[in-house]
Amino acid sequence: MYMAKAIILAKSVRHLTRANPRVGCILVRDGDVIGAGATQPPGGPHAEIVALNSCPDARGATAYVTLEPCSHTGRTPPCVDALIKAAVIRVVVACVDPNPKVNGAGLERLRSAGIRVDIGVLESQARALNPGFNRRMRGGLPFVRLKLAMSLDGATAMANGQSKWITGPMARRQVQRMRARAGAVITGVGTVVADNPSLNVRWDETDLDPGPLLPSDQPLRVVMDRSGRTPLDAQLFKIPGPVMIISQSASGPTQQAWADCGAQVVMLTAVTPATVLAELADAGVNEVMVEAGPTLAGAWMDAGLVDRLVVFQAPLLMGSQTRPLMHTPNWTELSDAVRLQLIESRAIGTDRCLEYSVEKA
Amino acid sequence: MYMAKAIILAKSVRHLTRANPRVGCILVRDGDVIGAGATQPPGGPHAEIVALNSCPDARGATAYVTLEPCSHTGRTPPCVDALIKAAVIRVVVACVDPNPKVNGAGLERLRSAGIRVDIGVLESQARALNPGFNRRMRGGLPFVRLKLAMSLDGATAMANGQSKWITGPMARRQVQRMRARAGAVITGVGTVVADNPSLNVRWDETDLDPGPLLPSDQPLRVVMDRSGRTPLDAQLFKIPGPVMIISQSASGPTQQAWADCGAQVVMLTAVTPATVLAELADAGVNEVMVEAGPTLAGAWMDAGLVDRLVVFQAPLLMGSQTRPLMHTPNWTELSDAVRLQLIESRAIGTDRCLEYSVEKA
Repeated sequence: MYMAKAIILAKSVRHLTRANPRVGCILVRDGDVIGAGATQPPGGPHAEIVALNSCPDARGATAYVTLEPCSHTGRTPPCVDALIKAAVIRVVVACVDPNPKVNGAGLERLRSAGIRVDIGVLESQARALNPGFNRRMRGGLPFVRLKLAMSLDGATAMANGQSKWITGPMARRQVQRMRARAGAVITGVGTVVADNPSLNVRWDETDLDPGPLLPSDQPLRVVMDRSGRTPLDAQLFKIPGPVMIISQSASGPTQQAWADCGAQVVMLTAVTPATVLAELADAGVNEVMVEAGPTLAGAWMDAGLVDRLVVFQAPLLMGSQTRPLMHTPNWTELSDAVRLQLIESRAIGTDRCLEYSVEKA
Repeated sequence: MYMAKAIILAKSVRHLTRANPRVGCILVRDGDVIGAGATQPPGGPHAEIVALNSCPDARGATAYVTLEPCSHTGRTPPCVDALIKAAVIRVVVACVDPNPKVNGAGLERLRSAGIRVDIGVLESQARALNPGFNRRMRGGLPFVRLKLAMSLDGATAMANGQSKWITGPMARRQVQRMRARAGAVITGVGTVVADNPSLNVRWDETDLDPGPLLPSDQPLRVVMDRSGRTPLDAQLFKIPGPVMIISQSASGPTQQAWADCGAQVVMLTAVTPATVLAELADAGVNEVMVEAGPTLAGAWMDAGLVDRLVVFQAPLLMGSQTRPLMHTPNWTELSDAVRLQLIESRAIGTDRCLEYSVEKA
C-alpha cells in the first residue's frame, strides 16, 4: 500500500525528471506516513531527500522507495548516506537500480549500516515507471514513442497537402503532455520545412505542473536533417530550450550558422533512426517521442525501433486521394505487416487516442 | 417498464422479421405479465398474436406494444381485431405505424371498440428498432450499413492483393450477425470474382436462434454487376436462399443463364447505389448491408447513401504498398472528407469494432 503511494508519487513527476529515473519515496513510522517525496528536476534532490526533508525527524521510520537508493555521487550526494544519517530502520525497495554505478551497491551499503532491506515489492509496476532509463542503463537504446494523427482511414493529409487540424484541440493538448514526458522530441527536416513547428512544451496547454522548471527547461528538440535543409528562421530556434540538428552532409557554413542560432550540431556518417537513437542514448535521453511525417515515421517503423505507437484517430473519412500514415516501400507482403497490441483506447474529445505496443519480429 | 420489456423482445427478433417491422408485445393484468410475444418471420404471426396465444385468457388485460397494431389484412389478419376479440381493456403503444395502410387507423379502430389507447411511451427507443422500415414506409430508401475490415492504417489488402484474414475469427462471427439482421446483403461483381463469397448467414457461427427459419430463409444476396461478369459457378448460386443480380449491359443469354441458376435478374439503365437502393425498397428490403471492395465502398460513401459505417480494425500496420479502404476519386479537398460520429466502440477478440453514423453533408 505504501509502495503503491510511492509509485503514484513517481508518476506525478514523469514530466520533470528527464535523464533521471522517476522515483517516489514514502516514510512510515508506527503506521503513519510521516514524509513523502518524488525526484526533482536534474540537479535537484532525489525522492529520498525530498521525503526526508518533508519531516522534522525520520528516526525509526521505514522508507518505501520505488528504486534502489543511489550509492554514488552524481549531481547530488548519495541518498543511502542521507537515509543512514536519518536513522531509518528499514528500507523497502521495489526494484534494483540498473545503473551500473549502483546495481545493488546501495542496498549493500544500507545493510552494512544495520538497516533492514527488503526488495521486490510491486517490482514490475515500479520498473514500468522508467522503461527508457532501465534499458539505457543496461547499454540499450532509449524508449521510443511514435505519435501519429490520422483519419479513420489512415490518411494524414489530402494528396494536395491539406491537413490542418485533422484531430481536435483536446488531442493537441495530449500531444503536449507526451512532449513533456519525453527527454527528446524528434522530427524530420521535411516537417520543419513544411509545418515549421515549435515542438516545445506549452505548459499552459497541459494540466501538468512545471514545478521548478524554467520556460527554457524543455525536452531536447532533435531534427534529422541528412542534407542540411533546416532554415535559420525556423520556429524551433526562436523558442527557449535546447535544439540538436543531426546531419550527414550539411556544409561547414551551414553547421556554423545553426550553431550561431544556438543549436547543437551533430554530424554522423549516416542519419538513420538507429544512429540517432544511439546518439541520444549517449546524451542521457531515456524516452524519445517521434513526431514525423509519413516518410520518417515509416523509416522508424521499418527499422523496428518503435516501442509504442500513439495514434490519434479522427472520426473522418478522407478517402483515397490522400497521403498515407507512413511510407513503407519495403513492405510488399502481408508478412511484412507489423502486429500491434492495444494497450489503451480512450476518447479525447471527438477523437480517439489509441496506444499500442509494437510486437518485435 | 413493461414497454422496456416489449422493446427487448422486439430486439430479440431483429434477425427474423425481414420486411416486417420488429415488434414486441407484453400483456399485463393486475400487475402480472400474463403474455408476451415478438414478431415471427414473414407469414408467421405478429407480436400481438404471439402474446395473445401465449396466455389462455387475456380478458381485462393491458397490451404494451412497441408499434401500433395493424388494422389491415396482409399475410395475416389485422391484429386490432384479435385484440378486440380478446377483450383487452387498454393498449399502450410506443409509436404509430408509419405504414400508410395503418398510420393511426389501428389506434382509431381500438378506440372505436371502447379500448383505452395511450401512445408515445419510450417512443424514440421503439422507433430505433426499425430505422429502415420507418423510412421506407414514408417513401424513403432502406437503411444502409457499410461493413469494412481494415488494418489500423486503413489498408484492406497489400498492393499485390494479399488480404486473407486481416481481422480475426470473432470479427467474422460478428459479420454473420450483421448479415442475419439485414434484409439484403449487397456486394460488387469484383468481390464475387476475386473472393467468391457465399454471403449467407451461417447460423452455427452466430449465437442467434434461427427459430422457425429454414436454411433457405436467407437475406437477399445482391450483386451489382454492370457489365455481366458474375460467373455461373459462383458460390452464391450453390447456397440455398434468394440471389438478385442487378445489371446494366448483361447479354440476354447471360441473363438467362443466371435465371437458370435460380437468380432474380434485374436490368437497370444505370447500376448505381441510388438505383439499387430504390429497387430494394420496392422489393420490401428495410435494411441493407454492403460488403464490398474499395471501389464500390467508395461509390456508396460518395453517393451519400450510407447511414452506418461498421469498421473492423485489426491491430496491424500494413504500410503504404497497400489498397486503400475506399476509392474516392472525387474527394480532392479536405472539405470533401466525410465527418463521422462514433456510436459504439468495442473489442472483438484482438480487433476493434467501431460503429459510426455518417454526418450528412
